[in-house]
Amino acid sequence: MAVKLAENNYGESRVRLLRVVRQEGRHDIKELTVGIRFEGDFESAHTKGENKKILPTDTMKNSVYAIARQYPVEAIEDFALHLIEHFLTYNEQVSRVHVEITESPWSRIPHGTKPHAFAFTRTHGREKRMANLLATREETTIRAGIEGLDVLKTAKSAFDGFLRDPYTTLKADHDGILATTIQADWLYEGEEVEFSPLWHGVRQTLLETFAEHDSESLQHTLYAIGEAVLATFDRIREIHLSLPNKHFNLVDLAPFGMDNPGEVFLPSDEPYGLIEATLRRE
Amino acid sequence: MAVKLAENNYGESRVRLLRVVRQEGRHDIKELTVGIRFEGDFESAHTKGENKKILPTDTMKNSVYAIARQYPVEAIEDFALHLIEHFLTYNEQVSRVHVEITESPWSRIPHGTKPHAFAFTRTHGREKRMANLLATREETTIRAGIEGLDVLKTAKSAFDGFLRDPYTTLKADHDGILATTIQADWLYEGEEVEFSPLWHGVRQTLLETFAEHDSESLQHTLYAIGEAVLATFDRIREIHLSLPNKHFNLVDLAPFGMDNPGEVFLPSDEPYGLIEATLRRE
Amino acid sequence: MAVKLAENNYGESRVRLLRVVRQEGRHDIKELTVGIRFEGDFESAHTKGENKKILPTDTMKNSVYAIARQYPVEAIEDFALHLIEHFLTYNEQVSRVHVEITESPWSRIPHGTKPHAFAFTRTHGREKRMANLLATREETTIRAGIEGLDVLKTAKSAFDGFLRDPYTTLKADHDGILATTIQADWLYEGEEVEFSPLWHGVRQTLLETFAEHDSESLQHTLYAIGEAVLATFDRIREIHLSLPNKHFNLVDLAPFGMDNPGEVFLPSDEPYGLIEATLRRE
Amino acid sequence: MAVKLAENNYGESRVRLLRVVRQEGRHDIKELTVGIRFEGDFESAHTKGENKKILPTDTMKNSVYAIARQYPVEAIEDFALHLIEHFLTYNEQVSRVHVEITESPWSRIPHGTKPHAFAFTRTHGREKRMANLLATREETTIRAGIEGLDVLKTAKSAFDGFLRDPYTTLKADHDGILATTIQADWLYEGEEVEFSPLWHGVRQTLLETFAEHDSESLQHTLYAIGEAVLATFDRIREIHLSLPNKHFNLVDLAPFGMDNPGEVFLPSDEPYGLIEATLRRE
Repeated sequence: MAVKLAENNYGESRVRLLRVVRQEGRHDIKELTVGIRFEGDFESAHTKGENKKILPTDTMKNSVYAIARQYPVEAIEDFALHLIEHFLTYNEQVSRVHVEITESPWSRIPHGTKPHAFAFTRTHGREKRMANLLATREETTIRAGIEGLDVLKTAKSAFDGFLRDPYTTLKADHDGILATTIQADWLYEGEEVEFSPLWHGVRQTLLETFAEHDSESLQHTLYAIGEAVLATFDRIREIHLSLPNKHFNLVDLAPFGMDNPGEVFLPSDEPYGLIEATLRRE
Repeated sequence: MAVKLAENNYGESRVRLLRVVRQEGRHDIKELTVGIRFEGDFESAHTKGENKKILPTDTMKNSVYAIARQYPVEAIEDFALHLIEHFLTYNEQVSRVHVEITESPWSRIPHGTKPHAFAFTRTHGREKRMANLLATREETTIRAGIEGLDVLKTAKSAFDGFLRDPYTTLKADHDGILATTIQADWLYEGEEVEFSPLWHGVRQTLLETFAEHDSESLQHTLYAIGEAVLATFDRIREIHLSLPNKHFNLVDLAPFGMDNPGEVFLPSDEPYGLIEATLRRE
Repeated sequence: MAVKLAENNYGESRVRLLRVVRQEGRHDIKELTVGIRFEGDFESAHTKGENKKILPTDTMKNSVYAIARQYPVEAIEDFALHLIEHFLTYNEQVSRVHVEITESPWSRIPHGTKPHAFAFTRTHGREKRMANLLATREETTIRAGIEGLDVLKTAKSAFDGFLRDPYTTLKADHDGILATTIQADWLYEGEEVEFSPLWHGVRQTLLETFAEHDSESLQHTLYAIGEAVLATFDRIREIHLSLPNKHFNLVDLAPFGMDNPGEVFLPSDEPYGLIEATLRRE
Repeated sequence: MAVKLAENNYGESRVRLLRVVRQEGRHDIKELTVGIRFEGDFESAHTKGENKKILPTDTMKNSVYAIARQYPVEAIEDFALHLIEHFLTYNEQVSRVHVEITESPWSRIPHGTKPHAFAFTRTHGREKRMANLLATREETTIRAGIEGLDVLKTAKSAFDGFLRDPYTTLKADHDGILATTIQADWLYEGEEVEFSPLWHGVRQTLLETFAEHDSESLQHTLYAIGEAVLATFDRIREIHLSLPNKHFNLVDLAPFGMDNPGEVFLPSDEPYGLIEATLRRE
C-alpha cells in the first residue's frame, strides 16, 4: 500500500500574554492569546522521525514573548506582522505561516470623571477582537474580526412567508426577539491600513445596522450588515458573517389563564439556528 | 441499623427568563436565571416514595413564568420576594424557601448620541448581579451580590515581608500585577431598602477601592474594599468577599539577552490563590 | 464605625500534578488537582498589610510538588494526610488546614488480552474521585467522594401522586427516563480506613442501587442509595448526596400524526431539578 | 458599489435526542446531537427579505425527531443518510445538505456478572463518535470520526535533534510524557460499509498504535497512526488527524534539594502544540 502525506501543519496554540507599556502617569495594557502554525517541508519528521527541520513549538512560544518585548503592541495586526517576519526570516524550511491573535479587551476603571491611569476592568461582554494573518514569502493576507458580540432586539423583527412542509409547526412572528452573537471577519486590501480605527468603525456599523434594520429574517439582517460594512469601508474587500439565531420562545401562559403579549420569553442555548454567508465587493 | 434523614431540600435550578416591558418608544429587558429550593416535611417522599407533599420542580418553573407575567421585574430582590410570598402562601408543607436570582446585564446600543429604544448589547464582561434570599414564615434574609467582575492594576501593588520556609522560592514584588475577579455578597438590614441604587453604589465602591488602595497583599485590599463598603452604606450589615489571586508571572527573557522591566507577563488560570473573608459591622 | 474581621481563610487552588511511579515493566500514574486553605492568625495582614504570618500560596504549590516527590501517591486521602502533617508542623500561625484533592482517573489501554504497561486512556466519563480533609491539631475529619458519575435508566422509574397547584401542568409518569449525575461524599469514622477498596465499593453500591431501585421519585432513589451505602460500609458515618434531576422530555409527535411510546426524548441541561440530602447513622 | 452574495448556508445546530428501543428484557439507547446545514437558492432571502424558499430551522429540528421515530438509530451514519434523503426529497431549492451527528456513548451498568438490561452509565471519558455527511443529488461523501479520546504514555517517547534558534530553550527529552486528545476523521469509499464495526476497529487501531509506537515526535506518531489505519481498513480512503501536544512539564525540585527522575509533572492546558495532517491512500 502506498500512503501519501497530504496537507500538514503544526504550531503552538493559546500562547497567552499581557503586554504593559509604562509611561509616566499612564499605563497601557493588552491581553492577547496567540496561535502560530507552520506549513513547509516536514515530511521526514512524519515518515522517519527526523526532527532537524522541526522548530519546537516551545520556541514559537518564546519567540512571541521576545518579540512582544521588542515591539509594544498597538494593533494586533501589526504584532502579527512582526511575528510573521521573524518566522519567515529564520525558518527557510517554512513555506507558509499562519498567525491568529485574539485580544480580550480591558477598559479603564472610571476615576472621578476621568479614566484611571493604571486600573482596568472588562466592559465588553464576551467580545474579542481577532486578527488572522496567512503569509508566504510572496504574499500576506490580513483578516480582522470580532467574536462574542451579543446583541438582541425586541422590535423590527419578523419571520413570515416561509416554506412549510408536513413537519412545520412554527408560527409566523411579527414582534419577536431577534438575538444573535455576532462573529464576523473581513479581508483587507491594499497597503497601509489603519487597523485599529477601522476595526472600531466596523464594530459600530455592525451594532447600528443590527439595531436599525427592519428584519424579515436573520438572513436579511446578515446581508444588510455585510452590505453596510462594504459600503462604508473601501479597504474591506469581503466580509464573512456567522450568526447563530438564538431562540427566545414565548412562554405559553394560557394554562394559567394568562395572555403573554411578548413579555415573558424562555432564552435557550440549544438548539440554535445558524446563518452564514460571505459578501464580496464585485 | 437505624438511618436518619438529616438536612434535605429540593428545587429547580437554572430557570431562565427574559422579561420585556414594552412602552411606547422604549422597551426594557431583564435576563434572569432563577433557582428555587424548598426545605420542609419531605421525609415520607424519601423513605416511602410517597409524593403527596412534593410540589413538582416543573411547577416551580411554571410559577416563575406566571409571576414574572404579573410583576414586571425591576430589582431582582423584589422579584425574589414575590416568588417567596407565592411559595410560602400555597405550600404549608414548606418551612423554608431559598430563592437565588442571577441577572445577566444588557445595555442599550448607542444610537447616534442617544441610547437605542429597543436594541441591546452586553457591556459588562462576565459580570452578573445576584440576589440570594432565604425565608421562613417568620423571617427573610436578603443578600445581594456581584460575581465575575474582572479587575487588574499595574501599580500600587506589592507583596513582601512574607513568611519563608524551605519550599519558598517566591521573590518579593513591588510593582507587579494585581488581578482578581471580584465575587462579593452582602447582607441588608432593615426595611425598605432601595435595592438597585444600593447595588450600583456598592459596585462603584468595589472598583474605586480596588483601583486606589496601596496594596501590600490581596488580603490587605480585600479588607480595604470591605471596610469601604461598610463605611459607605449603612444598610449593609456584613459583606463577604471571595477573591482569586490571578497570577501574572513576569516572563524570564534573560536567556534571550533581554531584560523585562514589568512589560511582558504570562497570565494563567491555574493554579490561583484564593482569599476569602467576611467583614461585619460591630 | 467598628468593623470586625470575621471568618477568613486563604490558600492555593487548582494545583495540578501527574505523579508517575516507574517500576520495571510497569508504570503507574495519578493525575490530581489539589486545593489548600489555611485558617489562622491573619488579622494583621488584612488590617495592617503586614505579611509576616502569611506563607505565600506559591509556597503551598511548591510544597505539593515536594511532598509528592517524597510519597508516591496511592490513595488521595493518604496524600492529603501527608500535606496536612507538613503544613501543621511548619506553620504555627495556622489553626486549621483544609485539603481537597480531585483525581481524574486514567485506565490502561488494552494490549492484546492484557492491560498495557505504560499507556493509558480515560474510561470514566467526567467522573472524578474526591477527598476532602479538614484538620486542626486536635482532630482530622476525612470525607471521600465522587462527582460527575452520569447514570440513566429507562425503566423502574415513576413519578405520580404529587402535590398539584394552579400552576401544575406536569403529567404523572410511569415509564420515563430517570437520569442524574451523582455527586456524593461521605464521612469516615475510626482509624485505619482502607481508602481505595472502600471508595470502589461505595461506587459499585451507588451504581447498583440506582439501577435496581423501584423508584417513585428521585428523592426515593436518593434515600435508597444512601441507606444501601450506610448498610454496607460500617466505617461510613454519614453520606451526603446531591442529585440533579436531568429532564428528558418526551417529544410530542402528535402534530405529525405519530405516537411516541417512550422512544424519542429531548435531553436538556437546563432547567434541572436538584435533590439534596444527608443520611446519618443514628 | 456592487456587492455579491458568495458562499452561504443555514441550518439548525445542536438538536439533541435520546432514542430508546424497548424490547422485552432489554432496552437500547443512543444519545445524539445533530446539526443540519442547507446550501441552495437563498439569495432572495438575503437581498429582499423574501422567505418563500426558507424552510424554518425549527422544521429541521422537528424532522430529526419525526425521522428518529421512524428509524431506530443503529449506526449514526445510517441515521444521517435517512435525514439527507428526507431533506433532498422535499426541498428542491436545496442543492447540498450537510448533516453532522455526534454520539455521546453510554454503557450498561454491570449487574452481577452481566450487563444491566436498562440502566446505563458513561465509560468513555469525553470521547464522542462523529459522522459528517455532505450530499448533493449526485453524490454523498461520508466521513466518520472520533473526538475527545484522551491518551497518555510514560515511555517510548522522545524528542531530540530538533532545529534550534536563538529563542530555543527546550531540552532534548528521551523519557517524557506523550499526551494528546485524539481527534480523527476518515473518508469511506464504496458502498455497503458496515459503519459500526469499522468505527470500533479504527478506535482500537488508534489506541494500540499510540501505545506501541516508538515515538520520535508527535508528528512521527501521527503518521504511524494514520498509516496503520489505512493499512488495516481498505474501505478508508483518507484519514485526517488533529493532535494537540499536551505539555507535561517536569517540575524542577532542585531548589528543595531533590532530584526528579520523571516522577512529578505539571499538566497544563495552555499553551499546547498542535499537529495536523491528512494521510491519503495513493
